[in-house]
Amino acid sequence: MGEVHIIRKEEPIVGYELISGVLRLTLQNPPANALSIALMQLLLDHLLAARDDKAVRVIIIDSAQKLFSAGHDLKELTAHRQDADRGRAFFEETMQLCAELMQAIVHHPRPVIAAVGGLATAAGCQLVASCDLAICSDKATFCTPGVHIGLFCSTPMVALSRNVSRKQAMEMLLTGEVIDASTAREFGLVNRVVPEEYLNPIVRKYAQAIAEKSTLTVKIGKEAFYRQAEMGLSEAYAYTAQVMVENMLARDAEEGINAFIEKRKPEWKGE
Amino acid sequence: MGEVHIIRKEEPIVGYELISGVLRLTLQNPPANALSIALMQLLLDHLLAARDDKAVRVIIIDSAQKLFSAGHDLKELTAHRQDADRGRAFFEETMQLCAELMQAIVHHPRPVIAAVGGLATAAGCQLVASCDLAICSDKATFCTPGVHIGLFCSTPMVALSRNVSRKQAMEMLLTGEVIDASTAREFGLVNRVVPEEYLNPIVRKYAQAIAEKSTLTVKIGKEAFYRQAEMGLSEAYAYTAQVMVENMLARDAEEGINAFIEKRKPEWKGE
Amino acid sequence: MGEVHIIRKEEPIVGYELISGVLRLTLQNPPANALSIALMQLLLDHLLAARDDKAVRVIIIDSAQKLFSAGHDLKELTAHRQDADRGRAFFEETMQLCAELMQAIVHHPRPVIAAVGGLATAAGCQLVASCDLAICSDKATFCTPGVHIGLFCSTPMVALSRNVSRKQAMEMLLTGEVIDASTAREFGLVNRVVPEEYLNPIVRKYAQAIAEKSTLTVKIGKEAFYRQAEMGLSEAYAYTAQVMVENMLARDAEEGINAFIEKRKPEWKGE
Repeated sequence: MGEVHIIRKEEPIVGYELISGVLRLTLQNPPANALSIALMQLLLDHLLAARDDKAVRVIIIDSAQKLFSAGHDLKELTAHRQDADRGRAFFEETMQLCAELMQAIVHHPRPVIAAVGGLATAAGCQLVASCDLAICSDKATFCTPGVHIGLFCSTPMVALSRNVSRKQAMEMLLTGEVIDASTAREFGLVNRVVPEEYLNPIVRKYAQAIAEKSTLTVKIGKEAFYRQAEMGLSEAYAYTAQVMVENMLARDAEEGINAFIEKRKPEWKGE
Repeated sequence: MGEVHIIRKEEPIVGYELISGVLRLTLQNPPANALSIALMQLLLDHLLAARDDKAVRVIIIDSAQKLFSAGHDLKELTAHRQDADRGRAFFEETMQLCAELMQAIVHHPRPVIAAVGGLATAAGCQLVASCDLAICSDKATFCTPGVHIGLFCSTPMVALSRNVSRKQAMEMLLTGEVIDASTAREFGLVNRVVPEEYLNPIVRKYAQAIAEKSTLTVKIGKEAFYRQAEMGLSEAYAYTAQVMVENMLARDAEEGINAFIEKRKPEWKGE
Repeated sequence: MGEVHIIRKEEPIVGYELISGVLRLTLQNPPANALSIALMQLLLDHLLAARDDKAVRVIIIDSAQKLFSAGHDLKELTAHRQDADRGRAFFEETMQLCAELMQAIVHHPRPVIAAVGGLATAAGCQLVASCDLAICSDKATFCTPGVHIGLFCSTPMVALSRNVSRKQAMEMLLTGEVIDASTAREFGLVNRVVPEEYLNPIVRKYAQAIAEKSTLTVKIGKEAFYRQAEMGLSEAYAYTAQVMVENMLARDAEEGINAFIEKRKPEWKGE
């Protein structure tokens, strides 16, 4: 990767730091890192800009404080109950922006890793579930507690139930109770639990390992992964067989396979 | 919840007890709690009646004896081989009623918890898998043994394979062998394994915790859960975003969120 | 099963041994058991022939050496970059044959068990994931390392992601790192891990247990399993309820249920 370039943007509620292909987007909206309209829009803007930024090879979403995110901004939502439409338009804006943000992660050409140091609840838990990979500290906890306040976690369940088995998801949703980090790993919500002090180094190690791959190859594969997941078996094979052929014909596969046969390090051209 | 109201109905094969919003339906069809036509119809009738009974907030399905259920009534099925159509009409009636019963649980507006003290086999295992939550004793065991008697567990597999991963489900179906309680939990078939003597108190604790939630919120969320599970990601988000907006505009969410902000207990209006 | 009949075919790269209903297909294409066109075609031919061979009741796929399979033949693929079309036609042939092979396992009327003694990588890992059951030695390892060589494991992911949860599959695909046998079991990729020296006896035990079942019943059930897995709940129940009725009316269910009621061993007629 050669010399180290560091780009930092000072933002009120989402930190931006790009070092050697690794983009770190940091939630810093104290006290609860609430996913307000402003935070979701800024996070989405960064993600969309990174789609076209060749310098970005992998993305980390973490938080400035130990708490990851407590989900939507209930005070912001509640304030709009005074609107003429009792808040309907604002609630729709919030839920649509949230759905757009979560799908922007899934559809992003770069892998997105959640680094979770503390509590991730409701839409905060959904954000973790929406990332391609999630690594958490042994102090991290997770829940979907909307049922406690009369607002079932119906959008979080979309991401949750695509990570966690049915009964386990239902237990989280119906009881609203907190699960600890090792339970989250057992359920499939996170990939790995690490001691608190190792969270950053290990997330960085994962990010760097992925940043060393061909961005073209990773983009092809990530897109194919989520598309084939929604297909029947026969359709999925017809589709991915064609993806493999095009991938084989791309320069980076030729270079990668040659390098492997010649026992040398590949030099990616990327997209 | 105020004072305690107890309603009991004396039934030959399905016990009915409603205490403070918790409806307990007890399989009591000795020796094997076979899911005969009569038992399935009675269980279904209770479930359908409970849809419109405001007093019911959560449902438990358990068994009077330790054995949970050995599935369909083989003697009843076999007797109908003497029919003019070799039993076809009766087999169709049995399988359609069974499918209707299992789907009545999934589509029920109230959460349904299986409390399993012993063996749950074939359609008995399917009944456990069809419930929203399942809690079992450490003496509980599970299997889908139809393959031993020439009748593959093809309807049980529908519920089983929506709880348990593919290879694990296939092992149960192809070998017909019994798995123990801790394996069932590992596979995702049950939520929790508890010492035998704690099964009832812990199931009651879960039921009471859920009975304290808004029935409207739980109904909205449960319905959304199973509907979005059958959708692609983008459709699921479009659907659940709208569910969240309607949920936000319902009285119980307003009350719940206000109570949360004001740090007091909410007072649900329900449906 | 009566007396033992042994049929062996001498083949250069896929061993064939049929003993008492158990067909063992052995990958023997050293050094890496690469899934070359020749190997895939021969394996497919054996599978297709076994569809119509009443003597075959269950199939094992294993390897002559400890290594199971390193996936596609990279040298064979690379050689075709010299073709006038830069290899496109050959790559298409390879990927289509591979997809056909994997689906022939899924759609095969007989259960197919992978017996994995060592490394299973890329399309080799896909082969394991495509089998109905997989049993491995504690020395077995698994990976989908295409990302290292610029060729994402996009067809292997089809089988992998239908066995392993989303984040775990993504970790294997994005990092390309090797997982050990116990992790593979935890992820759901294999059913059971056994000490190296017990791999063959235990696989044989599974195969024999399944070979003793009615081939008709197993065929009905296996087909129904994969078909209903791609349906919504209501469609799946309508379909499998009908499967159950036809299964009940088949002779082997009548015999099996009678034998069960009479406490004797059933005598299957099969297909």
